[in-house]
Amino acid sequence: MITTEHPAKVLAIDIGGTKLAIGIVSRSGELLASLRCPTQAHEGPDAVLSRILDLSRTLLQDHAVEGVGVGCGGPLDTTTGTIKNPPNLPGWLDYPLGSLLKDALNLPVHIDNDANAAALAEHQFGAGRGTRHMVYLTLSTGIGGGIIIDGKLYRGKHGNAGELGHITIQHGGHPCNCGNRGCLEAYCSGTSIARRARDLARQHPESLLTQLAGDLESIRAETVLEALKQQDPLTRMFWNQTLDMLAAGITSVIHTFDPERIVLGGGVTNFGPELFEPLRQRVNTLTIPDLNAGVDIVPAELGNAVGILGAAAVALQHAFHEVLR
Amino acid sequence: MITTEHPAKVLAIDIGGTKLAIGIVSRSGELLASLRCPTQAHEGPDAVLSRILDLSRTLLQDHAVEGVGVGCGGPLDTTTGTIKNPPNLPGWLDYPLGSLLKDALNLPVHIDNDANAAALAEHQFGAGRGTRHMVYLTLSTGIGGGIIIDGKLYRGKHGNAGELGHITIQHGGHPCNCGNRGCLEAYCSGTSIARRARDLARQHPESLLTQLAGDLESIRAETVLEALKQQDPLTRMFWNQTLDMLAAGITSVIHTFDPERIVLGGGVTNFGPELFEPLRQRVNTLTIPDLNAGVDIVPAELGNAVGILGAAAVALQHAFHEVLR
Repeated sequence: MITTEHPAKVLAIDIGGTKLAIGIVSRSGELLASLRCPTQAHEGPDAVLSRILDLSRTLLQDHAVEGVGVGCGGPLDTTTGTIKNPPNLPGWLDYPLGSLLKDALNLPVHIDNDANAAALAEHQFGAGRGTRHMVYLTLSTGIGGGIIIDGKLYRGKHGNAGELGHITIQHGGHPCNCGNRGCLEAYCSGTSIARRARDLARQHPESLLTQLAGDLESIRAETVLEALKQQDPLTRMFWNQTLDMLAAGITSVIHTFDPERIVLGGGVTNFGPELFEPLRQRVNTLTIPDLNAGVDIVPAELGNAVGILGAAAVALQHAFHEVLR
Repeated sequence: MITTEHPAKVLAIDIGGTKLAIGIVSRSGELLASLRCPTQAHEGPDAVLSRILDLSRTLLQDHAVEGVGVGCGGPLDTTTGTIKNPPNLPGWLDYPLGSLLKDALNLPVHIDNDANAAALAEHQFGAGRGTRHMVYLTLSTGIGGGIIIDGKLYRGKHGNAGELGHITIQHGGHPCNCGNRGCLEAYCSGTSIARRARDLARQHPESLLTQLAGDLESIRAETVLEALKQQDPLTRMFWNQTLDMLAAGITSVIHTFDPERIVLGGGVTNFGPELFEPLRQRVNTLTIPDLNAGVDIVPAELGNAVGILGAAAVALQHAFHEVLR
């Protein structure tokens, strides 16, 4: 049922590996109502869809919306709304989520991957507001990207543009989950930072990293941050190398896009001042003088709300903006 | 003087380090008339401008045009039409070519760098016809790039997008002319291929490369091609490494843009079958399965005409198409 009583609202569905979040979001990015529950992805897509529909119908009793936006782990097909076996949703193999939601809710449904959704949300409501050309990078379990060109999300031919975790920064280097070697993700994702820190600690059995974590296998990216705070020289060297690699990747992004702003989100941004200022300095040194003066590298602003606001932004873009496919 | 008698023609000015080429080009990319002469760049920009104006006025006696397009080595400012000290035009420091041409010819003038102009020309008239999302790479003295998004040239914030020669593929690797290390250009430009081949021949004094060139310092990229034709194992190993590096860079471009087609131009494409088929195989192995199926990697089609057709395409885009700044 579509009404136009409150035309500037959408239903936002954020499907995470562990949590479902469903909300009503206004055109200006206000979260008007929301419901959350565990995904229980192991029960399979039909059970999860049933939970999504229950929560959605509850919210739709009080809110008329223009459409539905879904943010979900990729790979997925944004055109057909088909989910294609994402690592965080086991068993969702070629699952036609878009058409099932559309039929059940009788509303237009648009789906995009987490990183694209987050890029849209940061552009519309967060750290990218007011820019025409912006690149979003999420430094999380993996590294994802979303590209805003001329104010619109750029998806490329197959909807897979912005896989910025898989630009090569070290030809022949560390193996990456994608099967290639030397990808940015293989060095600078939260998971890779933790793995590289464990490799380092293995060579330095007395390291502060191992002491802080209790044992070597418990070392996480957070352990690195804690060791930095305690001025550990070995960790400082390690972190400088990590910053060097990240700066190389971001320099490639700047030389490619000449964007106005680069927005960084994801758990690795919890490194805060240990990340942003030294990263800016390195990128400033690496980029071609005069060519890319004044590109901002800023933290994402939406925090944990980025999932649901991202899903909303996917719907809002289709409802109210032109889409650059 | 602007007439609309023949509305679909432009004046195209291709300013090279050694040659000037000026022509009248139709909207469909036909070169209707052209004049060429040496640039004699050492005489300075005013002398060159004077030659450009002489040739232009000769052509304009017989042709009414909509506007003027200029292709020129960068860096330059596409908004103001200012040339900013390109390496191939010594002394052209902040030279306001655009406004000088506009005042002298009383026509709208648009200027872009060689690589962007070539990308536009290949998209409008050459190997990129019919694509919406295309990336052009010129593998020449340096490596330049031009990005077509949604059928339009993407320039970025400062007009410097597409510096694809300066994406990092080997963090901390070979020094690049840009001041950084490990750029694609530092391995795969014609100049870098020659330099790397000389480095190799220095370590192998009996190499076929040195024999073919006469002496070590005379080794060029062409020498590498000749040695490949003669089945030289050392050169084969060298060329395989070069292909690996180029494939890493192009894989980054594909993961970033998910384009329909990648068009390669510039002198290095004279390697022909030694370049394209093994490059496609490598890229196919390196790109994420299922994500980027079917991206074409094809040779540019316009050959030596790309300079003048590129200059024309710069004007035609402004005269007849929307511009994506």
